[in-house]
This record gives sequence, structure tokens and C-alpha cells, in this order.
Amino acid sequence: MLTLDQIKELAVRTPSKIVLLVLDGLGGLPPAEGSKTELATARTPNMDRLAHLGSCGLSEPVSPGITPGSAPSHMALFGYDPIKYEVGRGVLEALGIDFDLQDGDVAARGNFCSVDRNGVITDRRAGRISTEECSVLCQELQKIKIPGVQVFVLPVKEHRFALIMRGAALRAELADTDPQREGMAPLPIVPLDRKAERTARLVKQFVSAARDVLKDEKKANMVLLRGFSLRPALPPFEEVFKLRAAAIASYPMYRGLAKLVGMEVLTTGSTLTDELATLEANFGKFDFFYVHVKGADSAGEDGDFARKVKVIEEVDAALPRISTLGPDVLIVTGDHSTPAVMKSHSWHPVPFVIRSKSCRPDRLDKFSEDHCLRGHLGNFPALAVMPVALAHALKLNKYGA
Amino acid sequence: MLTLDQIKELAVRTPSKIVLLVLDGLGGLPPAEGSKTELATARTPNMDRLAHLGSCGLSEPVSPGITPGSAPSHMALFGYDPIKYEVGRGVLEALGIDFDLQDGDVAARGNFCSVDRNGVITDRRAGRISTEECSVLCQELQKIKIPGVQVFVLPVKEHRFALIMRGAALRAELADTDPQREGMAPLPIVPLDRKAERTARLVKQFVSAARDVLKDEKKANMVLLRGFSLRPALPPFEEVFKLRAAAIASYPMYRGLAKLVGMEVLTTGSTLTDELATLEANFGKFDFFYVHVKGADSAGEDGDFARKVKVIEEVDAALPRISTLGPDVLIVTGDHSTPAVMKSHSWHPVPFVIRSKSCRPDRLDKFSEDHCLRGHLGNFPALAVMPVALAHALKLNKYGA
Repeated sequence: MLTLDQIKELAVRTPSKIVLLVLDGLGGLPPAEGSKTELATARTPNMDRLAHLGSCGLSEPVSPGITPGSAPSHMALFGYDPIKYEVGRGVLEALGIDFDLQDGDVAARGNFCSVDRNGVITDRRAGRISTEECSVLCQELQKIKIPGVQVFVLPVKEHRFALIMRGAALRAELADTDPQREGMAPLPIVPLDRKAERTARLVKQFVSAARDVLKDEKKANMVLLRGFSLRPALPPFEEVFKLRAAAIASYPMYRGLAKLVGMEVLTTGSTLTDELATLEANFGKFDFFYVHVKGADSAGEDGDFARKVKVIEEVDAALPRISTLGPDVLIVTGDHSTPAVMKSHSWHPVPFVIRSKSCRPDRLDKFSEDHCLRGHLGNFPALAVMPVALAHALKLNKYGA
Repeated sequence: MLTLDQIKELAVRTPSKIVLLVLDGLGGLPPAEGSKTELATARTPNMDRLAHLGSCGLSEPVSPGITPGSAPSHMALFGYDPIKYEVGRGVLEALGIDFDLQDGDVAARGNFCSVDRNGVITDRRAGRISTEECSVLCQELQKIKIPGVQVFVLPVKEHRFALIMRGAALRAELADTDPQREGMAPLPIVPLDRKAERTARLVKQFVSAARDVLKDEKKANMVLLRGFSLRPALPPFEEVFKLRAAAIASYPMYRGLAKLVGMEVLTTGSTLTDELATLEANFGKFDFFYVHVKGADSAGEDGDFARKVKVIEEVDAALPRISTLGPDVLIVTGDHSTPAVMKSHSWHPVPFVIRSKSCRPDRLDKFSEDHCLRGHLGNFPALAVMPVALAHALKLNKYGA
């Protein structure tokens, strides 16, 4: 695979437009012997037409057998090697609440937890306090002042919060304080690199102050921190791919991932209809549109086969709104598989179809995992999605003389 | 592909069990235009059922076009990059006779050869003396004493023997003494690194003593040495993959390769029936079983198409004995191809099928090279076999947040 530097040398600006429609968790499994996957079950006349006229394949988000989290699977789709460009847990948590992470910010995932009078953890999740309680406690912790740095404490969901420190020369090489089990005290803040010693002292001050603030709480009387991380340094999407790129996603984490690579995040509503209206309203302004639909993954995670089928059918029914805009390249795919029968992300390769004037048409009857297997792209790494998209948009010069 | 360190972070211990059944040299070729491969010819109702319910593919042992030896092809199957982790010729020779190689032992492959009165090689193989003659000569050479090291001289087959030196600070950076052609004298022992100078002197003493011992032999009056090597340092299989792994193989070299990566080698007999009895007797004690069947490769090397078909059919008939044990993951594959028509290992990708509850079923009618091409795994690197096996056994956590 070419490096981003090499792609950057080949990519050229043209007026052609690319739409990358990502149905999160699209790939699936048959729930029982002799049955079909979610996508194979869904009635999808418009996607089927793409599979007939376009080129299909099955993409590997990371490599065979590896189940990706949302960050590596999206990094790959966006053209960034997910093994090289890691997104830390803390950064992801901050992105997930739409926090505007700056270069140099250190982010960590926090849990409120319960400790006994000896400081021993009795519940790592503080009895799963409500998100409302969490918000109130975060407001209290937000009042903590640490000289030399700005501290942000923001609620996520239930017992989870995000801690962000902003200041000069902060480092993220800090060990987790969450021992991942009960019956022992939170671990001390340990710098994993001499350069992180100052940051360790600052975080220690925060944890100590937080203990004082929380000491009279019944459940949430202590905090655990993990996944300290800095925004990864990524070559900007527009510089590499020569694309003015827009992200349309109703879920914060995906907006955050798009922002990380340098896409412009468009304001949109929470439904597919909202997202498509945003696409239509902005179609003239950008060359590349990443459109993210969360529902298929959520249904898969819930083990709701029928709902996942329904989400796919709804997206299919809405496809003509995208086609009508006349993108030069239209891609419909997922970021990973989330088979309802597994109720989780999985390692299975992901259905993919691309439609442009320069496709070898697969003439398949249906868009499904089994059909994609017979498509012109075969099994291929998701990291190749961007080069393939650029190629079909005639935005990629010849490599070598 | 993730590194072994990364896999190690993701792998978890669970009670699920994996059986990796390797038919050595399984892949084949049609012997004539319009005919079928060995596997396609064989009547294999049980493997066909796996190909119907499981996921198939064609694995590349090293990379397209590269014909692997047994060591690299097995390293890849065991999850170790065969390009990174090389097993030297001398080490392989020692493993092939079940020698219990220790860390720091230097092993070399030896040939008895014939030299004339001027010391010029007249026959690199000493007229292919019998294995019995070889054994007697090895016993003589075994009497050679070199101060500071222990020397082992062990017969292999015909003119071939293994030389192992055991002692402190031995090195393997020594040039071959076998010039690979007749009409010239054996090459001197040359250290390829200053650190190997002492070892070179010790080997020189051995060769000089061996010349004296052999001087009155008619044919085998000199030795040639090549492939000096140390046991490669491999991250232990159990630590990386979190598997208590057992190897069941009737041929020493394969037991040796399994032992190299840290599997426990079970005592077994020489037939498939013996191997399966060993599997049955030990099924409760391990999480992972590597079962090796040599016959298909031997038949291929002999150019015996019909015998290779028969071996495959025998294994197929025995498959229910494995299925009855109820492994969570069953894989049937080869380590490389050995087409009878070529009478040798070849570079052709290797048929592969995996069966677990989380397979996308390929619904293929037959287990064959051509059918595997249409399977969900497509063409894939053999190095991915272990991650894929772990994934299907639900032993691999999500990668990244």
C-alpha cells in the first residue's frame, strides 16, 4: 500500500464529487443455519442496482480475524493505517461528547467509583449512577483549579466522564489508575516516561482534589482514570487527498473522528432525513462527503436482527436522494460488521459497493455479503477505500513513470 | 497485520477449543488438461460438509509465487511471520531427528562425502551410503572430544547427519564448508562475525578430528557442513495466544517445529488412527490441538497422485472422530501445496476451511482448490490463520477503542 506521502503526490484537485455512505456495523451473520444475514434479508432494490452496475467487494478493516473498535475501522476508511495511527481511549471519549480537542490536550476516560473507608474499591462503576447525577458531580469537579493548566470535566453517560487537561508541554505517558477490578485501591498516577513526570504531578493534584470534593458522596466517592492520550498527529485529509471534505454524522464520536483527520463537520439533525437534507444543502460546497448512519450498528449491538434489517431498508429507500445529486463516485459500505446474533462488533469483512462511470460492473442481483464476495474488488483492505474512491473520481495520477 | 505483541494484548483465555488439522502438502494441481486436483478428485463427504457450513479460502504460506519449506510454512500457520522468524537448516535437521535442542546449541547439517588423495571432493554424497553405515560412522565421530563443548553427531538418512555443539557462548555465524559442487576441496571454516571466531576454531577441531577418524573409509572419508544455526528466539505460543497447545505429529520435524514455538508435544503412534486416539485421550487437557498428517505430502513428493487421493480420503473418513469431540473451531488445511505432478512442494495457495458457530457459511458443494477460491476468506496470508482461529473461538478482544 502506498504511504500517505505517496498518495499526496498523486492526488489532484478536480471538480468531481465523492459520497462515502457508511452504515455503521453493516456486515452481519445468518442467525441460524440455513438463514440469511441482515443485509441479505433486507429488501434493498437501490443497493442491488448499485451491485449490478458497480463494483463490489468485502473490506477488511484491520486484518483477517481482528475485530476493530470504531476508531481503527474509521481511520482505515479515511485512508489512515489504523495500526500506525492509534486513537487513544481518552481522546475517543472526548470526541464522543463533541469536545473540541486541541493539539496538546491530554484526555482520559474517567469512571466514578465507590471506595470503602480504607480506600478500597467496592464498585468500579459507583452503582452506575444516572447521567444526571454524573453531570452534577462533573460540575463540582470542574471547579477544581490546578495551577498552570486548564481542566475540563465532562459527563459522558452513567458513571463515565471525560477529563481533559490543557496546558503547555503535557504528556500522555501515564499508567491507568483503574485496576480493572474491585477489592483493591485505585492505582497511583505513574509516569511511563520521565518527560511525563510533570503531567503526572498535575493529574495527581486533580485526583487528590477530586477525592476531597467527593468524600461525602454515598456511591460516587472516588474517580478512576484510564486511556490517557493526546490527539494523534495526522496528515490533514485535505492536504493528502486534495479534497474539501465534509462529515455528516449525528453521533458525536464519528463527527470527532472526522474532525481528527481534518474534515469539516456539518451541523445536522439526528435522523437520516436530517443527514440527507444536510447533504443536499451542502452538495455544491465540498468534493467529498462522509455520511454516517449509526442505526445498523446500534441494532446489531442490541441483538435486534429485525431492526437492523429495517435500518438498512430505510437507508436503501433514501438512496435515490443521494443518486439524484449526481455524485461521480458513490460508495455504500460499513466500517465493520456487527452481527445481531453476536450483539457486538466482529471481525467479519464488510460489504462494499462503488459506483462510478469507470467501474467494471459486477452485474450482481443483490447487495449482500455473499454477493460482494463475487465482486471485482474481492477481499481487500479497508485502507484501500480512499485510493479506490479517488481513482474512480479520476483524482489520482499515475504512479511512477 | 498486527504484531505478536499486539495479538498478545488482545488474546484472552477461554474454555473454547481449537483443532488445526494439517494435511501436509494438501494443495495440488490437475495432472493433465481437463483433469482435477488430488483434493477435487478425492471423495470427501465430511470435508465437503465443512465447506458447506464453514468459511473457505486459499492461504498463501509466504507470499505469491514463493514455494515454502516445511519450516516457514509451519511458522506461518502457527502465527509467526516466516520472513521474520527463520529456522536454520541445521536446527531443522536436529528437529527432524527429535533431538532435544537447547537454547544456545549450534546445529549444522552434515554430509558424508568422498575426497581423493588431494582432498578434492569426488562425491558430495559419498555414494549415498546406507543409513546403517551412516549410523556406525556417526558413532565413531561421536567419540571425538573437543575441550569446552559437548558434541553430538547423529545419523539422519543415507549420507546425512546432524552435528550439534553445546557449550557457553557459541555462535552460528559460520560459512558452509560444503562448496555445493565436486572437483574442489571442502571450504575452510570461516567465521562471518568476529564473535564467532571461537566457535569456528572449535568446529575446525571437530572437522580435523573427523578427517582422521574417516581417513581409511572407502566412500565416506570426509564431512561437509552447512546451515550452522541457533534455535530461533520465538515469543512463546502460550504467552502470545493464551492457549495451552498440544502437538500431535508422527514425524519428528513437525514435533520439533511445534516444540520450537512452545507447544507441548504429545506421544503418539505413526498412523492417523494413533494420532486421533491421542487427540481423544487428551482433548480435555488443552485448548489448541495441532494435528499433523504427513501422508499427503509424501505421496505428492513421490508423484503418486492416486496415493495422495487415498490419504485425503482416509483423513476425510476419520473426520467424524474429531467432530464428535465438539471443538468450537475446526480447521482443515495444509501447510503448502505438493502437487503429485510436480513431485515437490510448490507455491500454489493452500485450501483452507474453518467451521465454527460464527462462520459466514460458504454453502460450497465440495472442498477443493477451485471451491475455496469462492469462499469468504478469499486468498489470504497463512499468517492470518491464528488470528482467524482465535476470533472464531471468541478468544480475541476488540482492537482499539
